[in-house]
Amino acid sequence: MLIPAEQMNSTLKAILSSEGFKEPAAERIAHIFTSSSMDGYHSHGINRFAEFVKNCRKGVIDPGADVSLRSSFGHVERWDGQGGAGPLNAWKSMNRAVELAKKHVLGCVALSNTNHWMRGGSYGWQAAASGCIAICFTNTMPNMPPWGGQTPTTGNNPIVIALPRSQGHIVIDMSLSQFSYGKLHQHKLNGTSLPFPGGYDHEGDLTTDPTAIIASKRILQTGYWKGSGLSLMIDLLAATLSGGKTTAEIGTYDAETNLSQVFICIDPSKLYANEAYNQLVNSVLDFYRSALPEKEGQPIYFPGERTAGRRAISAKIGIEVKEPIWEGIRALRK
Amino acid sequence: MLIPAEQMNSTLKAILSSEGFKEPAAERIAHIFTSSSMDGYHSHGINRFAEFVKNCRKGVIDPGADVSLRSSFGHVERWDGQGGAGPLNAWKSMNRAVELAKKHVLGCVALSNTNHWMRGGSYGWQAAASGCIAICFTNTMPNMPPWGGQTPTTGNNPIVIALPRSQGHIVIDMSLSQFSYGKLHQHKLNGTSLPFPGGYDHEGDLTTDPTAIIASKRILQTGYWKGSGLSLMIDLLAATLSGGKTTAEIGTYDAETNLSQVFICIDPSKLYANEAYNQLVNSVLDFYRSALPEKEGQPIYFPGERTAGRRAISAKIGIEVKEPIWEGIRALRK
Repeated sequence: MLIPAEQMNSTLKAILSSEGFKEPAAERIAHIFTSSSMDGYHSHGINRFAEFVKNCRKGVIDPGADVSLRSSFGHVERWDGQGGAGPLNAWKSMNRAVELAKKHVLGCVALSNTNHWMRGGSYGWQAAASGCIAICFTNTMPNMPPWGGQTPTTGNNPIVIALPRSQGHIVIDMSLSQFSYGKLHQHKLNGTSLPFPGGYDHEGDLTTDPTAIIASKRILQTGYWKGSGLSLMIDLLAATLSGGKTTAEIGTYDAETNLSQVFICIDPSKLYANEAYNQLVNSVLDFYRSALPEKEGQPIYFPGERTAGRRAISAKIGIEVKEPIWEGIRALRK
Repeated sequence: MLIPAEQMNSTLKAILSSEGFKEPAAERIAHIFTSSSMDGYHSHGINRFAEFVKNCRKGVIDPGADVSLRSSFGHVERWDGQGGAGPLNAWKSMNRAVELAKKHVLGCVALSNTNHWMRGGSYGWQAAASGCIAICFTNTMPNMPPWGGQTPTTGNNPIVIALPRSQGHIVIDMSLSQFSYGKLHQHKLNGTSLPFPGGYDHEGDLTTDPTAIIASKRILQTGYWKGSGLSLMIDLLAATLSGGKTTAEIGTYDAETNLSQVFICIDPSKLYANEAYNQLVNSVLDFYRSALPEKEGQPIYFPGERTAGRRAISAKIGIEVKEPIWEGIRALRK
């Protein structure tokens, strides 16, 4: 079914209000879930909204919590998320990092004790919309084995990098497993193989069979040993900068909570006249896309390009949502 | 043959002095080449020294150049490498980033118009030895196709992240191609296949045959589309922050020169008592390494662990160097 974005937003907002979120928090969170769904990231948007509400009811997420400044070093600030909503805390942190960048060229907010930020890309688009370059990342619960190991002792710790551009922002949002569990489940449901090996089967062999990987819980790191090492570094950076919890500690809780995140922002308008910046960015994109395509006529996309395309379609025709998902959300209303 | 580190250092230093490098530049560059070789990174150490000297003679590298401050924004500085030696410029930039971090918690140096930094990890180890966390990256000449493309319109743009630790620093140094051309040539020489697909053959199929990949020039990105997008972002960050050249521009020169690099440093001693920081870092490492190993008895390494092991061996027995390489270097003496 197709749900107009406004209808989705107002439905989610009403539910969030009844769960105890005040204004403008309810509107902000509803908007983040709706935008992610418009952009086609349902697994971290509308498909996860019911779980988000359940986590509010279970006390994992505190609808009354607000971020609190722990310490300030001028352009670097440490904030405590106090167990509040992940998307709200992340949005506030990026908003603050943008403020710091506009004042100091480069600003950094490190956030402890927060919850899952849903789609990390949201905060990249947010910074880019404010004219800022951004780098942000989060740790997660242990959900990925390290290189050479069978059991999950690191996270797939997503990294987001965004650059503003007047003809359309450039935003990469990548986790450090080659495929997400969401993608594995999607392939399993569709009865399709992964396009590339995405993990190991029970015999310890690399496989493209999503069912075998889900069963073994041995998802493959992005770039094998590289993604494994990088995931360790992201956890270390997130925890040490924020003073928050590590993937190891997060693994000791009943739910994935008390995450650590970092938001770095740079204001390019302090470094360039606007036109010069845009010309530079466009020259890089033009060259990148000038490669001889693998298949004739096949375009070479830059990160964020197809997302913007899906967003435009959703704005026009509405957001495609699976009926049971939407019914499940309507059933959350009190 | 085995060359004692001191002998290698003094041999390289004498050659550098005769090429016009003054003190302490000659000593610094000799030390970086020697350390990389001690650590086992010969392809970016001793094996590339002759090419480095040839680039001085060709005028690609200016032995008399020094870095010059272009603009300062407190904790953010832009420097111009003025075509000087890449390792020297990178070392000075990281040194300055450490100074900025010690003063401002987080410092950032963006460097334009520099030359190849050889082993990026050198500057991670440098920052960690100064007690600082570091993130640094560089762009390169176009040497990797973008995802969906056949011809190289992006670089394998290496990223380095380092965290200091009293029992041994943690340093990841990774390029954004799954294997370097150096590694491909090594496998070709040894007559071995790559352990995983590392690029495409002329039919456009993924292959583990190093000869086929060298011939097609289609090396595989780290994590397929992820490494491709990330390489674009690293080029954009390096060029926009430094105000320097892009991979596209670098591709128009006869040699790989006028690179753009970024050095970000954070001083954790501003955030933690030393013991608390070390405990936090060790707890992450302990958990990471606690995974059930893939093969019984096989240790799980953290990034930098084996490098430190090789360094200790080289210090004890000398640095293993192929005889023609060493003879080639001795022949450079004037």
